[in-house]
Amino acid sequence: MRRLVTLTTDFGLDDSYVGQMKGVILKINPEANIVDITHHIPAYDVFKGALVLNACYKYFPERTVHLAVVDPTVGSPRRALLVQTKDHFFVGPDNGIFSFIYEREKIKEILKIENEEFLLHDRSSTFHGRDVFSPVAAHLSLGINAERFGPKADTCVKLKIPSPTVKKDSIRGEIVYIDSFGNLITNISSKNLECFSGRRLVINIANRKIKGISRSYSEARPKEILALVGSSGYLEISAWENGADRILNMKTGDEVILKPETL
Amino acid sequence: MRRLVTLTTDFGLDDSYVGQMKGVILKINPEANIVDITHHIPAYDVFKGALVLNACYKYFPERTVHLAVVDPTVGSPRRALLVQTKDHFFVGPDNGIFSFIYEREKIKEILKIENEEFLLHDRSSTFHGRDVFSPVAAHLSLGINAERFGPKADTCVKLKIPSPTVKKDSIRGEIVYIDSFGNLITNISSKNLECFSGRRLVINIANRKIKGISRSYSEARPKEILALVGSSGYLEISAWENGADRILNMKTGDEVILKPETL
Amino acid sequence: MRRLVTLTTDFGLDDSYVGQMKGVILKINPEANIVDITHHIPAYDVFKGALVLNACYKYFPERTVHLAVVDPTVGSPRRALLVQTKDHFFVGPDNGIFSFIYEREKIKEILKIENEEFLLHDRSSTFHGRDVFSPVAAHLSLGINAERFGPKADTCVKLKIPSPTVKKDSIRGEIVYIDSFGNLITNISSKNLECFSGRRLVINIANRKIKGISRSYSEARPKEILALVGSSGYLEISAWENGADRILNMKTGDEVILKPETL
Repeated sequence: MRRLVTLTTDFGLDDSYVGQMKGVILKINPEANIVDITHHIPAYDVFKGALVLNACYKYFPERTVHLAVVDPTVGSPRRALLVQTKDHFFVGPDNGIFSFIYEREKIKEILKIENEEFLLHDRSSTFHGRDVFSPVAAHLSLGINAERFGPKADTCVKLKIPSPTVKKDSIRGEIVYIDSFGNLITNISSKNLECFSGRRLVINIANRKIKGISRSYSEARPKEILALVGSSGYLEISAWENGADRILNMKTGDEVILKPETL
Repeated sequence: MRRLVTLTTDFGLDDSYVGQMKGVILKINPEANIVDITHHIPAYDVFKGALVLNACYKYFPERTVHLAVVDPTVGSPRRALLVQTKDHFFVGPDNGIFSFIYEREKIKEILKIENEEFLLHDRSSTFHGRDVFSPVAAHLSLGINAERFGPKADTCVKLKIPSPTVKKDSIRGEIVYIDSFGNLITNISSKNLECFSGRRLVINIANRKIKGISRSYSEARPKEILALVGSSGYLEISAWENGADRILNMKTGDEVILKPETL
Repeated sequence: MRRLVTLTTDFGLDDSYVGQMKGVILKINPEANIVDITHHIPAYDVFKGALVLNACYKYFPERTVHLAVVDPTVGSPRRALLVQTKDHFFVGPDNGIFSFIYEREKIKEILKIENEEFLLHDRSSTFHGRDVFSPVAAHLSLGINAERFGPKADTCVKLKIPSPTVKKDSIRGEIVYIDSFGNLITNISSKNLECFSGRRLVINIANRKIKGISRSYSEARPKEILALVGSSGYLEISAWENGADRILNMKTGDEVILKPETL
């Protein structure tokens, strides 16, 4: 069976960087099956890379190798990591890009990539995506044991993951991601909403009130704003065939408050 | 032999949606060979999705599974379809995205996807690309018989395909697609042009007259506008190293009239 | 082992052109492993296509087939070429897109693609990427001998590759490529820099002086401009988390002068 390697980077698709990485992987393991998650993480936006990876990885088969390279501090002493969970491998810089993995998965081990045997011999100090992470992912995809890549890491960088404030009569969350349809995705989960189950909710956002949680985008009338639980299990604000982000002029970090409707 | 699954969507490549779909497909069939047609159909533009799919599918090998998801009414009662033609399978929403297939191919059967055995268990009402169409495509790529996915559909949604008006001394067509080079692709086929074979044609477009049909883009002088039969077999209007769309300020739906040159 | 075919084109990812090429390749060789280098070469920019291909090809395994189609003169008498080097195959138009290959690789042979047996039967005069180059690449990936595709080419088109002027006390180079991070990549190689080894260098660019060569992007303070040897082995000018191109208002072809620091 061909082993999967997924790629999540901020390299874009205009230059040769992604092609170089794929060449390196395929030279080491010509049978690797490389799947692009995205190369359009905004440059240096480690948190967005972490979010996109988090939304994706669990859909892939066991033993998939996830390579994630948003790496503004490449060339500095920041470490290179190999994270093994129950089902997957993650390879990338120690800058917080695996923050959601640490929180949500059972971690088997976190290793510092140090064994030069598995790296390119002529390494640049500017492109570890090609010279360090790709060869490690390729060797992992050949079935080489994780322990061989380096010693255990005692600590690792974790980004602050904003969590909602849940009170008896309100939930205060924020917008954490805006997708390319302009849907505003919050950090309020469907689990959070269960606190108020049975009661109609009012969503306060950008000085507007949205009444009730819809089931699908198609329930909205043209230009109407609606709230629903999106495909990742989080509350999102959407507008029918229009970007809710532009209509409401919202950005990530902006506040969303939920309350049960008062009678 | 690895079975092919092609993807045509409006999800873009910035978010995790396409990655999630690929993960779902590969978890079900790790040997599937996934080929992106495009993920840049403009959001909700079902007709453009239908056009791009139509321009592509026939180049793929027999038994390819074509997954097409431009799905503005996801979550509504619109049906999910599996269309089997002589050579291919098509999987997507019943909103007209297969309109050209119905018209041009010998249809073996059209089935309503209803068998929950082949869908994800936890289905969202907002992302059937991942929860319904991807698992169905993956199972099809494993060789599972089409009949097992659901009952026959009696009807299906067909979009109006604009056809040219062919008269004894003129053809009136329209621009149906503008490609990323700015070429204006019309609905006038090379077959339509045969009506006037042997006579020099004049193309009337945007208050200009283009005399004669060129053979290739390279026949134009810089900034000249020319007409030729493009690679899909349709008349197109092009400008050498410049977008004809911007030079002529044209958009889809705009009129193109052909007449034989009068002596 | 699945044979690799890489694609480098200016077709973009919005239209069906790349999908058509992939279908043609996979119909001929369903086991081909197709890897996109990029489809975002600016339209008709043969030199940029040559640069991106040059930065990539050497990372791929032996016997990889590299398909490169930036082809403004398609349909004219320009020839179609198959270039075989010690390790790789290159397929594309004879317009200079392989200029760096001719200069840097040991060429085994250059053939004119003429054997119609290996081309699509219904060929357009506007899309040889699909009708000529893709079927040739696919047949090559099946292991068919290069000689069978056509006769030897005596000459081929070579683009002028700008080289730096190296003097005893200065190097005058130019910017040849700007990547999507805004890094300004010059034609001054690390080898060129060795002339001044041991001496601190001053880089004159856009009326600014940059003192010294840094080791990595992360050595810069916010908004600082720095010079370093990039991952392709050439001097580049970079700005920390900001495009150096915008800060310095530079474009390709602009001059960069290096001198040893005077005491």
